[in-house]
Amino acid sequence: EIVAAAEAVLREEAIRAGSLPLAGKHVLITSGPTHEPIDPVRYIANRSSGKQGHALARAAYEAGARVTLVSGPVTLPDPANIHVIHVESASAMLKAVEGSLPADIAIMAAAVADWRVASEGAQKIKKDGTGKPPALELTENPDILATVGHHPDLRPRLLIGFAAETQNLIDNARGKLERKKADWIIANDVSPQTGIMGGDANTIRVVSRDGVEDWPEMDKGEVARRIIARAAEALGAD
Amino acid sequence: EIVAAAEAVLREEAIRAGSLPLAGKHVLITSGPTHEPIDPVRYIANRSSGKQGHALARAAYEAGARVTLVSGPVTLPDPANIHVIHVESASAMLKAVEGSLPADIAIMAAAVADWRVASEGAQKIKKDGTGKPPALELTENPDILATVGHHPDLRPRLLIGFAAETQNLIDNARGKLERKKADWIIANDVSPQTGIMGGDANTIRVVSRDGVEDWPEMDKGEVARRIIARAAEALGAD
Repeated sequence: EIVAAAEAVLREEAIRAGSLPLAGKHVLITSGPTHEPIDPVRYIANRSSGKQGHALARAAYEAGARVTLVSGPVTLPDPANIHVIHVESASAMLKAVEGSLPADIAIMAAAVADWRVASEGAQKIKKDGTGKPPALELTENPDILATVGHHPDLRPRLLIGFAAETQNLIDNARGKLERKKADWIIANDVSPQTGIMGGDANTIRVVSRDGVEDWPEMDKGEVARRIIARAAEALGAD
Repeated sequence: EIVAAAEAVLREEAIRAGSLPLAGKHVLITSGPTHEPIDPVRYIANRSSGKQGHALARAAYEAGARVTLVSGPVTLPDPANIHVIHVESASAMLKAVEGSLPADIAIMAAAVADWRVASEGAQKIKKDGTGKPPALELTENPDILATVGHHPDLRPRLLIGFAAETQNLIDNARGKLERKKADWIIANDVSPQTGIMGGDANTIRVVSRDGVEDWPEMDKGEVARRIIARAAEALGAD
């Protein structure tokens, strides 16, 4: 806590000295998985650890921004000096994101569940003795990136989405860029053998209307600092 | 680590002095949730934290037993001086449990998923643009408690199961006792408002062929010590 307080003081000084590129800007970041309840004890989850999203929040803070981090259930500690809103489901995450606008930059790094269970059980679902499993009816979740991208008056000046795929990485990312009205899509291959989901390193491809940029494998902290530096540049050149 | 080593030495001395009730016994414990994969990035989970199961493993170790802990994915550290086998799915847990027999006492405290996804996707399942969600076909998982209870030659002398329910607690526990050939069922009400799942306290009811015993609310460590003391007694009286 002493370290965090000292850090905050030093950052305020750097902001006053004008040396931080995102001073005065609000950066909104989502991170982690969402959990979609099946019944009071069960849920659908995904393997996102929140490491990349939390690293982005840190990097944006270090660049001088006021940061709002909307985080799904992760085992990471809350980053110091950052306003964190904890949510479980995609619906709750959308609400928190909409309530946190306006923002200059939004980076939607959370791995949001595409589907939730259509009718959440009020009681724990039991085996009925027939050996026949219950039907798990799914319904599509709201699309947070698309909702922000199509926002009638509060769309951030720079909107960055993530595409975690196991195949057709670039095609899927290009499709997302258009459909969701994002400025960049950070595409990464999360096939289990890559070790990216849950791991400390990331290999990303930055897809924008200008083309595709391949970045070499880096520590997730370094990926975050470079994305934030690039975002600050883009905002300045806007 | 120094503390763990010192603890092990002191325990060896206590075992030699004959003051530990489970010295020379093998206790097998399962703990935590299971994760059942949907595709490479998604899975079905439950809210079990593993706190009660891990506390039981500690208590059995402190009572002098050789302990095998088969743990699903939890955020708890591995307890010191205990052989831990990490698994994800119910199928993997069953394999680890069967491979760990024989045991004098088995306590199946894990919240094992009743169902898994029938055909796990090799690739991340994508929205197909129709807005129609994929069908998630489930199939029944193997029943670990029943498998151990009906084991032809390696059934432990004392077999304890858990029943986490949100309704009909005692009826469900009694049914489990008979169907799965357990000696005791530790029943607890995991309705969200109880705070038991994931929390530090537990209120249990011990269901056996002799009847139902209601225990007052206690810390999960204290629940564990009392269950282990009772188990050691039962084994001695056998």
